[in-house]
Amino acid sequence: MARKNAFYAQSGGVTAVINASACGVLQTARQHSDRIAKVFAGRNGIIGALTEDLIDTSVESEAAIAALKHTPGAAFGSCRYKLGSIHEHRAQYERLIEVFRAHDIGFFFYNGGGDSQDTTHKVSQISAELGEPIVCAGIPKTVDNDLAITDCSPGFGSAAKYLATSLREAAFDLAAMSRTSTQVFVLEVMGRHAGWTTAACALAAEHEGDAPHVLLLPEVAFNVVRFLAKVTDAFKRYGHCVIAVSEGVKTPDGQFLSAGSEDAFGHAQLGGVASLITSLISAKLGLKCHWAVPDYLQRSARHIASEIDVEQAYAVGRAAVEYAIAGRNAVMPAIRRLSDTPYRWDIIEAPLSAVANKEKLLPPDFISADGFGITEAARRYLAPLIVGEAYPPYRSGLPDYAKLEKVAVGKKLTRAFDFQE
Amino acid sequence: MARKNAFYAQSGGVTAVINASACGVLQTARQHSDRIAKVFAGRNGIIGALTEDLIDTSVESEAAIAALKHTPGAAFGSCRYKLGSIHEHRAQYERLIEVFRAHDIGFFFYNGGGDSQDTTHKVSQISAELGEPIVCAGIPKTVDNDLAITDCSPGFGSAAKYLATSLREAAFDLAAMSRTSTQVFVLEVMGRHAGWTTAACALAAEHEGDAPHVLLLPEVAFNVVRFLAKVTDAFKRYGHCVIAVSEGVKTPDGQFLSAGSEDAFGHAQLGGVASLITSLISAKLGLKCHWAVPDYLQRSARHIASEIDVEQAYAVGRAAVEYAIAGRNAVMPAIRRLSDTPYRWDIIEAPLSAVANKEKLLPPDFISADGFGITEAARRYLAPLIVGEAYPPYRSGLPDYAKLEKVAVGKKLTRAFDFQE
Repeated sequence: MARKNAFYAQSGGVTAVINASACGVLQTARQHSDRIAKVFAGRNGIIGALTEDLIDTSVESEAAIAALKHTPGAAFGSCRYKLGSIHEHRAQYERLIEVFRAHDIGFFFYNGGGDSQDTTHKVSQISAELGEPIVCAGIPKTVDNDLAITDCSPGFGSAAKYLATSLREAAFDLAAMSRTSTQVFVLEVMGRHAGWTTAACALAAEHEGDAPHVLLLPEVAFNVVRFLAKVTDAFKRYGHCVIAVSEGVKTPDGQFLSAGSEDAFGHAQLGGVASLITSLISAKLGLKCHWAVPDYLQRSARHIASEIDVEQAYAVGRAAVEYAIAGRNAVMPAIRRLSDTPYRWDIIEAPLSAVANKEKLLPPDFISADGFGITEAARRYLAPLIVGEAYPPYRSGLPDYAKLEKVAVGKKLTRAFDFQE
Repeated sequence: MARKNAFYAQSGGVTAVINASACGVLQTARQHSDRIAKVFAGRNGIIGALTEDLIDTSVESEAAIAALKHTPGAAFGSCRYKLGSIHEHRAQYERLIEVFRAHDIGFFFYNGGGDSQDTTHKVSQISAELGEPIVCAGIPKTVDNDLAITDCSPGFGSAAKYLATSLREAAFDLAAMSRTSTQVFVLEVMGRHAGWTTAACALAAEHEGDAPHVLLLPEVAFNVVRFLAKVTDAFKRYGHCVIAVSEGVKTPDGQFLSAGSEDAFGHAQLGGVASLITSLISAKLGLKCHWAVPDYLQRSARHIASEIDVEQAYAVGRAAVEYAIAGRNAVMPAIRRLSDTPYRWDIIEAPLSAVANKEKLLPPDFISADGFGITEAARRYLAPLIVGEAYPPYRSGLPDYAKLEKVAVGKKLTRAFDFQE
């Protein structure tokens, strides 16, 4: 088999562990230097490929590559950019193949969510069609945990651990203050459509009365009367009430409770629902509220990453390279759960066609009968994903995160390409 | 000397380490059982004394007391409740003495901020005046770091470590996304009047260009034109801009930028300034922004507490008991800095009269010339306070925080007391 270069890029919202997947890709590629010459990373995801803005990872030290395993963010830059349909935006795909041909790229690894798996799938199709076959593998990543086939998505476990820990800590705070100060605390959680991250907050509760007392999931239509009754009941029982609300919670007619603008993908850009919920509670129940919106903190909190999540993120990166050099094309390494207790898992091969553009919501049997909590089945699913601490090294009291050299690969094409066309 | 019981209570907003002070008090008191019979904790601070709602700490196990050192919140409950002046609210003070006499209390330990040191001071005065002398010691605590005399306040170092870490992590996120998505990130930081916590965010930056790029401190009047120019400049230089804004930032005429309601002490209850700042940037500069408000998360984040902070919190609790049994009255253990590098400190005795109701703001020489950053002097002061990790134990992937038995002491008085009168 010919020795070729590989392309690797990161896409979509970052996670605490997407760089652990990068570490898995790069370390495994270096172990297979007979098949993979160099790995070129796209600067800012697929845009780096379109604009021939490539980073030569071969000049990064072994230590720097190893440090990616404990570094949040996306080391090579990510993007919110979705390729159009092959039919309408053929020039984009032809450009990708032109760049890949110029740099002798025979392997394509794209690390992202459902949209990115779709892109990977299309690159695989078009490269074959254009007679320049590139072996393509998707690598799963999303804090939203909404990818199909894979039992869980790398990034989710760490966000879940951060959220459950933070909620438990804030609940200790609230419980201490509620006699004379704040009585209700609302934590706003990322997740447009799927309630996995909000559901994970429930792991903070171990005993009757433990916070959170109310979850507002995007899968359950918001009913103001039932919600206020639930809050009132919790407050009467426990003297305070902790609520985790998904930014994506919707009215009965399917509108986001908190209207906002749109992101580059045409996805709703949310935020502010915690403030809205507290205003409602203050006005209707007369309770004093505080709210928190961790926003990016929840998807970047490498300092409290889940050890299982880090291991799985690394494993899918490694498996993607191993699949590719075995000639497996248009696949994504997926995590398969073998048992809950003890938690056991392995990696299996999922066809990209089965993953692309799918969205996995919380199943009905994971949501409690009243819609404000999770079931034991959900708890059995969620609990193993936050287990283990994988602390980064610290220097001067702060996590010592890697910054790479990011040396650009010399351009070989003369034509520029406007990806925003 | 007679053997007496002691009263201990926690007051004001909690911190990640106020229970470490409680641990210092309780363990040290147990070592001096010849002088201190039992420690009764006030349930919800001084309100527990007024309402004779006392917790018998002597029934808590050694393990439970030890676990306080790694548990956030306020284990016995805190309060936002300030005693009135002795002149106008004499009944409150007489009630305290009545309760203390009934329970044979000869020592009073109050763990809080400037208001609490004032309360402690008054209890000391009135007890002597009423012929029932109680040895009183304040124990410093506040994430705001605004207490006088003491070089720093227990609770601050952990909030500072949490904030600088979180900001660094979110900045990695932003840097990865800014090519096609969010360009500006705003972190809203607690602190009504003093900018210590906001200043601490600057520790996240090590090199030119590192986040945060702009601080909005409550000590510096907000100037919209200069602020927008600063953001524009940072965005041009680095391709993104990270801002840490104090909830207490004020207009040139001294009004809070974000108006809000008031808390039980008549302090302004703030929040929402991050959203206001991002609206301004979006409207005037056309940049895409995200914002985060960690709220209680920042003062409860025991999972990323500063080891130095935990040690100091414990030490002031221990010293308060040692001062009291040595007969030192109306004092507060204060932290004295002996050197910056290596960081060395000890505990000295501060008279409550010098601490009560004082507020220590950022000194002018800690604020950079343009008002949007900190100086090297500030960095030398702040840096040692976040050093060292003091991880709590974990169980099932979450911090294993202590919950106490909190057995009530039998009431000895027949008269109830309405503290809200």
